[in-house]
Amino acid sequence: MSIITLTTDFGLSDHYVGVMKGVILGLDPEARLVDLCHQVEPYDVLGAALTLAASYCWFPPQTVHLVVVDPGVGSARRAILAQAGSWWFVAPDNGVLELVYRRRPHRVWGLEPEKFALEPISNTFHGRDVFAPAAALIARGTPPEQLGDAIAEYARLPIPQPRESAPGCRLGAVLKVDRFGNLITNFQTADLPTAFLITVGDARIHTLRPSYSAGAPGEIFAIAGSSGFLEVSLNQDSAARALGVTAGAPVELVDTSRRE
Amino acid sequence: MSIITLTTDFGLSDHYVGVMKGVILGLDPEARLVDLCHQVEPYDVLGAALTLAASYCWFPPQTVHLVVVDPGVGSARRAILAQAGSWWFVAPDNGVLELVYRRRPHRVWGLEPEKFALEPISNTFHGRDVFAPAAALIARGTPPEQLGDAIAEYARLPIPQPRESAPGCRLGAVLKVDRFGNLITNFQTADLPTAFLITVGDARIHTLRPSYSAGAPGEIFAIAGSSGFLEVSLNQDSAARALGVTAGAPVELVDTSRRE
Amino acid sequence: MSIITLTTDFGLSDHYVGVMKGVILGLDPEARLVDLCHQVEPYDVLGAALTLAASYCWFPPQTVHLVVVDPGVGSARRAILAQAGSWWFVAPDNGVLELVYRRRPHRVWGLEPEKFALEPISNTFHGRDVFAPAAALIARGTPPEQLGDAIAEYARLPIPQPRESAPGCRLGAVLKVDRFGNLITNFQTADLPTAFLITVGDARIHTLRPSYSAGAPGEIFAIAGSSGFLEVSLNQDSAARALGVTAGAPVELVDTSRRE
Repeated sequence: MSIITLTTDFGLSDHYVGVMKGVILGLDPEARLVDLCHQVEPYDVLGAALTLAASYCWFPPQTVHLVVVDPGVGSARRAILAQAGSWWFVAPDNGVLELVYRRRPHRVWGLEPEKFALEPISNTFHGRDVFAPAAALIARGTPPEQLGDAIAEYARLPIPQPRESAPGCRLGAVLKVDRFGNLITNFQTADLPTAFLITVGDARIHTLRPSYSAGAPGEIFAIAGSSGFLEVSLNQDSAARALGVTAGAPVELVDTSRRE
Repeated sequence: MSIITLTTDFGLSDHYVGVMKGVILGLDPEARLVDLCHQVEPYDVLGAALTLAASYCWFPPQTVHLVVVDPGVGSARRAILAQAGSWWFVAPDNGVLELVYRRRPHRVWGLEPEKFALEPISNTFHGRDVFAPAAALIARGTPPEQLGDAIAEYARLPIPQPRESAPGCRLGAVLKVDRFGNLITNFQTADLPTAFLITVGDARIHTLRPSYSAGAPGEIFAIAGSSGFLEVSLNQDSAARALGVTAGAPVELVDTSRRE
Repeated sequence: MSIITLTTDFGLSDHYVGVMKGVILGLDPEARLVDLCHQVEPYDVLGAALTLAASYCWFPPQTVHLVVVDPGVGSARRAILAQAGSWWFVAPDNGVLELVYRRRPHRVWGLEPEKFALEPISNTFHGRDVFAPAAALIARGTPPEQLGDAIAEYARLPIPQPRESAPGCRLGAVLKVDRFGNLITNFQTADLPTAFLITVGDARIHTLRPSYSAGAPGEIFAIAGSSGFLEVSLNQDSAARALGVTAGAPVELVDTSRRE
């Protein structure tokens, strides 16, 4: 029994996700299908990369993670298969696997749709015609070589990283705002100095709280998020709304422990 | 192992979809449940018919497609079972299966809830009390005759069709706007003349692009959609927003190849 | 084969629900996962309690209902396991099971995460680290005692109840507005007198309709909802929008049969 997860920007109002599932079940009737997220912003490759990075390793080994966020559908961009750690990935070759590449030893194959895709291949719905069949075939144990050749060159994605803007001062950004209004930054929790000042929007934050519920009413605080990134949060309220901040906003982190 | 898909206007904020799934699993523990769409606009029978038409044939034979978009719940409208091509359909008899009827040889049975429904049958939630049980029973192989008698008369749905408004000129409409802002029209791609002028909103379109990504920045173009309908699109942007157009808007198609 | 349902306030834009499913499938690969609702308003324990109460008993015996609406994540609030009727429940001990407690004989265990949780337990995502593992272990047949000790004291939730405001007159409230704009009140349908006057917003309602479709165009009417509560509705339109009413609005019910 195999598991296939789906991450797309298709939303939930159209038939696109359902059709992909139908194609998968036609090829692999035993597949367990799990939606990771279909509300990725249209064409937001970085958003999909973050969702996938926060999720893939919580699934059992051999799970196939299928990602279709694909601004280049119908163009010359390839479809790829990757094996990283114990997991499989099927995706457009647009860098959406960047965070997986960085964290795991991996191998990549360039998919050759003429070997396995539904015919005729449309130019508008590769999720149905190319990606879903590839995921189903891998899930049921088809050797990767039957879907395409191993490749050494594939697209990478620049992930915004904090940069040093002055001694002891780094400038990062909000990567994402979650449903609760937590600001997920691109600082790693592990990088946080013992004493710090974080500035984002109008807030100046000195405090790291161990849990959301440890925040005082109205207090904006820093917290170690569940995916390894530093977050800026408000207990039972939306930090994003309180600060008027959205994804992409600058976040400054000053190491105040160095002042002594 | 059976597959049951679900298409409703119940949305995702209430318990209605979950309850239907509970009822199905109680009757057919092996059923695989796949959501096609629960964001059909409330009472939008045409919208549900389009979603279903774009999806049903991508599922394996014997899949049961359950549709509950039912402005007439509690009234005298019947519940029906249909077999069309290799697939089963359970739905209210309100025309939601119209596009399936048009494309496939089919048989229809009038469901007799007293033979199989959950007791007592509410007047407000036939999805739970009538439709879910019928779908589960068919999925696990119950002969249709045990659920009701074959019928020859059932509701049909007028689907807006393009009409000739002048020689070489046809007037159609936008059937639906998808998540990406593509305008899905009621023109068949196969009907497109070699040279044409499409007018929708302020746009005058002469160009058929092979894929979304082949469109130039800002260019509104025509494209062969993945469900057989002609679409009007904008590469990585929303044609609907750019043109201020919603479902129902008129689309004029002039055959300019005839001018010569 | 086990069934696990999921009810959360995690929404569908983040990876949180998917990650919980990955953890569950790692521990119980046979589990059938069913989403009840992930659009519970953030931190709305009462909303989750209502969703669960309307749903749990429609699932087969031994189904495990997993609820993560948890304003107190990371605080001292316990995680609990409950058995009520034929069903299992895993939830934070914040009263979200109140309506189940009221309706079914039940037993409750205080979960001791050190016995079974994923290590290290984060302070920010107990859904992943504590609740999902507990649900999976119960689903695959682990005896409750292996997850924690039976307890006699656990949190209860005050559910807003109608109160008598004058002889023959009771004051209740709208508990919830559903997708269709039906106002779900906290009056039990069984309590409705034979002649009545309901006042909510600007509406004065004397009529109980047997089904939504029995309402005349534009008529606001009362109806016996599918979950046992009295609803105020409008045929094929939103009573909530027509009356400008949201959850929490007062609803007055006068027994006019007593006047004689």
